[in-house]
Amino acid sequence: MQRAEFYQLTGVILDLAVEAHDLLRGATRQEVPGVREDKEQFPNAVVTTITIMNATGEQAMGKPQGTYITIDAPALRSDNPPVHEEIGTLLAQRLNLLLQKLNIGPADPVLVVGLGNWEATPDSLGPKVINQFTVTRHLLKYVPQSMPPGTRPVSALAPGVLGTTGIETAEILRGVVEKTKPRVLIVIDALAAGDLQRVGSSIQISDTGISPGSGVGNQRVGINQQTMGVPVIAIGIPTVVHAGVIIFEALQQMQQAFPNVNLQGNQALAQNLARNVLAPFGGNLTVTPKEVDDLVHNLAWVIGNALNKSLHTTLLQARAAVPLH
Amino acid sequence: MQRAEFYQLTGVILDLAVEAHDLLRGATRQEVPGVREDKEQFPNAVVTTITIMNATGEQAMGKPQGTYITIDAPALRSDNPPVHEEIGTLLAQRLNLLLQKLNIGPADPVLVVGLGNWEATPDSLGPKVINQFTVTRHLLKYVPQSMPPGTRPVSALAPGVLGTTGIETAEILRGVVEKTKPRVLIVIDALAAGDLQRVGSSIQISDTGISPGSGVGNQRVGINQQTMGVPVIAIGIPTVVHAGVIIFEALQQMQQAFPNVNLQGNQALAQNLARNVLAPFGGNLTVTPKEVDDLVHNLAWVIGNALNKSLHTTLLQARAAVPLH
Amino acid sequence: MQRAEFYQLTGVILDLAVEAHDLLRGATRQEVPGVREDKEQFPNAVVTTITIMNATGEQAMGKPQGTYITIDAPALRSDNPPVHEEIGTLLAQRLNLLLQKLNIGPADPVLVVGLGNWEATPDSLGPKVINQFTVTRHLLKYVPQSMPPGTRPVSALAPGVLGTTGIETAEILRGVVEKTKPRVLIVIDALAAGDLQRVGSSIQISDTGISPGSGVGNQRVGINQQTMGVPVIAIGIPTVVHAGVIIFEALQQMQQAFPNVNLQGNQALAQNLARNVLAPFGGNLTVTPKEVDDLVHNLAWVIGNALNKSLHTTLLQARAAVPLH
Amino acid sequence: MQRAEFYQLTGVILDLAVEAHDLLRGATRQEVPGVREDKEQFPNAVVTTITIMNATGEQAMGKPQGTYITIDAPALRSDNPPVHEEIGTLLAQRLNLLLQKLNIGPADPVLVVGLGNWEATPDSLGPKVINQFTVTRHLLKYVPQSMPPGTRPVSALAPGVLGTTGIETAEILRGVVEKTKPRVLIVIDALAAGDLQRVGSSIQISDTGISPGSGVGNQRVGINQQTMGVPVIAIGIPTVVHAGVIIFEALQQMQQAFPNVNLQGNQALAQNLARNVLAPFGGNLTVTPKEVDDLVHNLAWVIGNALNKSLHTTLLQARAAVPLH
Repeated sequence: MQRAEFYQLTGVILDLAVEAHDLLRGATRQEVPGVREDKEQFPNAVVTTITIMNATGEQAMGKPQGTYITIDAPALRSDNPPVHEEIGTLLAQRLNLLLQKLNIGPADPVLVVGLGNWEATPDSLGPKVINQFTVTRHLLKYVPQSMPPGTRPVSALAPGVLGTTGIETAEILRGVVEKTKPRVLIVIDALAAGDLQRVGSSIQISDTGISPGSGVGNQRVGINQQTMGVPVIAIGIPTVVHAGVIIFEALQQMQQAFPNVNLQGNQALAQNLARNVLAPFGGNLTVTPKEVDDLVHNLAWVIGNALNKSLHTTLLQARAAVPLH
Repeated sequence: MQRAEFYQLTGVILDLAVEAHDLLRGATRQEVPGVREDKEQFPNAVVTTITIMNATGEQAMGKPQGTYITIDAPALRSDNPPVHEEIGTLLAQRLNLLLQKLNIGPADPVLVVGLGNWEATPDSLGPKVINQFTVTRHLLKYVPQSMPPGTRPVSALAPGVLGTTGIETAEILRGVVEKTKPRVLIVIDALAAGDLQRVGSSIQISDTGISPGSGVGNQRVGINQQTMGVPVIAIGIPTVVHAGVIIFEALQQMQQAFPNVNLQGNQALAQNLARNVLAPFGGNLTVTPKEVDDLVHNLAWVIGNALNKSLHTTLLQARAAVPLH
Repeated sequence: MQRAEFYQLTGVILDLAVEAHDLLRGATRQEVPGVREDKEQFPNAVVTTITIMNATGEQAMGKPQGTYITIDAPALRSDNPPVHEEIGTLLAQRLNLLLQKLNIGPADPVLVVGLGNWEATPDSLGPKVINQFTVTRHLLKYVPQSMPPGTRPVSALAPGVLGTTGIETAEILRGVVEKTKPRVLIVIDALAAGDLQRVGSSIQISDTGISPGSGVGNQRVGINQQTMGVPVIAIGIPTVVHAGVIIFEALQQMQQAFPNVNLQGNQALAQNLARNVLAPFGGNLTVTPKEVDDLVHNLAWVIGNALNKSLHTTLLQARAAVPLH
Repeated sequence: MQRAEFYQLTGVILDLAVEAHDLLRGATRQEVPGVREDKEQFPNAVVTTITIMNATGEQAMGKPQGTYITIDAPALRSDNPPVHEEIGTLLAQRLNLLLQKLNIGPADPVLVVGLGNWEATPDSLGPKVINQFTVTRHLLKYVPQSMPPGTRPVSALAPGVLGTTGIETAEILRGVVEKTKPRVLIVIDALAAGDLQRVGSSIQISDTGISPGSGVGNQRVGINQQTMGVPVIAIGIPTVVHAGVIIFEALQQMQQAFPNVNLQGNQALAQNLARNVLAPFGGNLTVTPKEVDDLVHNLAWVIGNALNKSLHTTLLQARAAVPLH
């Protein structure tokens, strides 16, 4: 049984397109029709852009057409503010790129959504980001004279999770979008990676929104242009790995140790693993490093900083133009 | 200058109808046309019901027509779980009363809203309540077989505050109501009292929702049947007193000390107090006791308990009928 | 390779004595010299008492001599307040038992310590408990007349974790014990289980304190009579499972599928699993269910309730004797 | 009755030496024997240094001999990161000055203490700062090879408050100091100001520690060289104003309105104000602006940043010397 098949059986979802692509290409690194991959090297980061170009790529990848940019920056995990600043700038540039592609102007209204459960540390990234950037929509409405001309109206929401609200997040957001009419949603979410090395060190930004079943909190209904009525940009950072991932890695180690025994090909074994090892708590078992609280704390700051840089160019320029003293 | 006039000048709002009524009646305890007051004595509580019966009462009170029930229970401030349980039961009964008056059946869907800012202790009551009762709407949708027949769909939302979201809370709620179609909203909010003795010890429950400008977080737009399209029951507990209240109390003490000097009647003095003492931070100064965190912690439990008792009769009976062992 | 050996290799520690005992007894359920196990059935719980009687048992179990009581109550995981109350009472009784054995009188001073990191959900049990019971030491000192005679002085501390403070928790506690002179410490900690079924549903209470290397936060120095100078009772609830546990379960499933291949006996394989699968983030990988925040929230209440019942008998009786009304 | 006398009667304490000094000097700006005041102008701040030089000054000021530096920077209240950075640098320089005066070398161990209650927003400044700077003591102990030579051991503690722990903070700290032997304590606390304009915009740094009765959480026992055995530097920021302050301001407005009536001189009136207006909740009433959560969030970052700059010169230089890329 190949990794892809095992993941399907055990409910592992790879939220990062770059990982889903690697999985499809496999050891032979074959091309996937309808999918393009571009890489750029930066001093402290590698940026990989996966473009799913058509329905063929869509079906192969199990993800909707669009652009998925991943910034891999292991230095994000170190306690190093200048690198955090640098990666924030890189993220802001990519966010600008996607906004331009979607034809969103510098004064068009934006709603930023922090998905996830602020009481469960690995899922608290989204709500934590909400307090880390400048919200302006109400100021433009109630004290417009205090804001420089051209300031973008930015609003924010942390809608909670299904288990706490009893309401699909997509239902809440759809209602808020209809009432407040942003031109685009930027949705922040904690993701599940297929490799522990990416936990706390990769950032994915895409123009396709959130698919059903993805994210640590596992949205049941997608949050995307189709359900929201406006484009949805998603920014996600892996904070966990599904337990099925490390079980498959164990299986591989065993296969290597016993190359003559067909361990991976044994369907019944795979099913027993799914049923007997990975089933408790509804199969929703995740692996996290102990220091996940530090990672989330730092990453929320990085994303908030990038949002300010990207969304508030006019506001920041106006402030810089006024001598502080 | 009478208290009422001073409060208007300095922006003091009395969220409790029982206090607004007392203010109107003044020292002479005159009747207010269009307003009725009934009192009931309980071992650990006094329950006062103010009914604003018509437009005359509405105008006099500055509050919409409807029923305002206040449970005054100073024992709520003591660390005494049995009393907290007792007051919770009393609150549940009054909530049932209002639900019946509004013709809400035992299986009709309810949305509970926790207003306020969970990062500012005196304003965090609403969001804290959200984690203290059972939410069922999603269970009835996804695992209906696990719920006893007749279970009420209950959902919950903590929408945040204007300063954090940039969105009027009423806009968020209106959108969510349209999408999820509850029959009634129950809105929890921290209130401002006109008497420190009521902080952490009175509970107001009314069928008129939240008026603009009321609550610690000061909603700018009302949350009521008119704006929501469904009836709104509000449960509120005072956690602060407006600074203007204690300034007026000081003024009264001075007037008593110098009965021959017309202190209260001096309009310029009142304006100077508003301008020079109460103006900083946009006039939004509140007085709180240091132990407000303990009060809010306990009161969130009392309200959550009452919500379970009132909304989940069927569910609680079904659970009690199954022998635990 | 047996489970015990694999756990040693991969750094898995079983914090529950009942699990360590099962591991030692193995499939054959052989007796372990120097260790006694007693079981009691209750309607909603099984209570297992492991007594490590001498140095032989100590060495075999890798845990110090003493009593380890485990309450296994799967109903703790359901949203059922009466069962939570019932298990709290059971816990209070066992706590009383240990206090009596240690010769601690009803008015002897107690220091309750909430270990762990309140910002990392699975490790936040200890700090969360600290707000759930009544602290009296300062009241007896500053307002003794307000407390019934015989009230026990109870104090509490959440000292934080090494990664946040830079100080071994044992150093902090040793200093506080010397200054405040409690007769006994009660230490609350989140534990790592060897079975996901026990996460959020078992409570261990022992009179041996905390051993080095145990708990989710992994104390490096023990917190016990030897390091503290006073007896230490530990109350712990598993909130995670070490990732090595599920890897070994996978290994077993494979062994069963291929009984003729010596998978478990392959030392190199075990070492590769430790090195290649379990090594990231310093080998400190834990598996948690997504709903860990709900579990911790409920369990903190159960333990706080039990502490009040056990430590404040006099105070609770005095309060009950005063008619509420 | 003069302001000073009124404050004494109503329990108002001025935590800022600059305010206590102004109060003493009164309208005539007379010199206070034994006290020196120096002012420096900076683009975005005024720095006032009060030196209490001898026992005469000590008695007059009601504060111990030593240096009290106040940075008044109203721009701290605006959402302006560059100014926050600038004020952080200014604070770091003054902290360095005091450390040098105390003869603390660049590698001498420091314990930073975050006083206050993290669940009560205006009192949560200290605990919030604890997560905003780098702790190194444990790294130097367990992984010294990973730290550049000369790195200073820094540890941190948020000991909680008397109402939650039942233990005087000074007792906890004294124990920890004895066990961990820092050369100096840096204690962070939320303060009460005598002027709302200083809330969230002034920073006081002194080499005298914390006096009994000061701070929002009101320490009953001092935290200073005498009680700790090592020097104590205190960094404090006002987040509240005592309710007595605005009552006196009201009294002054009235006196101005009625210059011929001796309002301020009326002792009975002052006592009635203390007894009838300011007495509830043990007289512990504070006035706070609604946005206190934002102020505390930003100020915690400013102080954390300053601590890193001042305490970790070696570590920051070593990091900067390694090319990031």
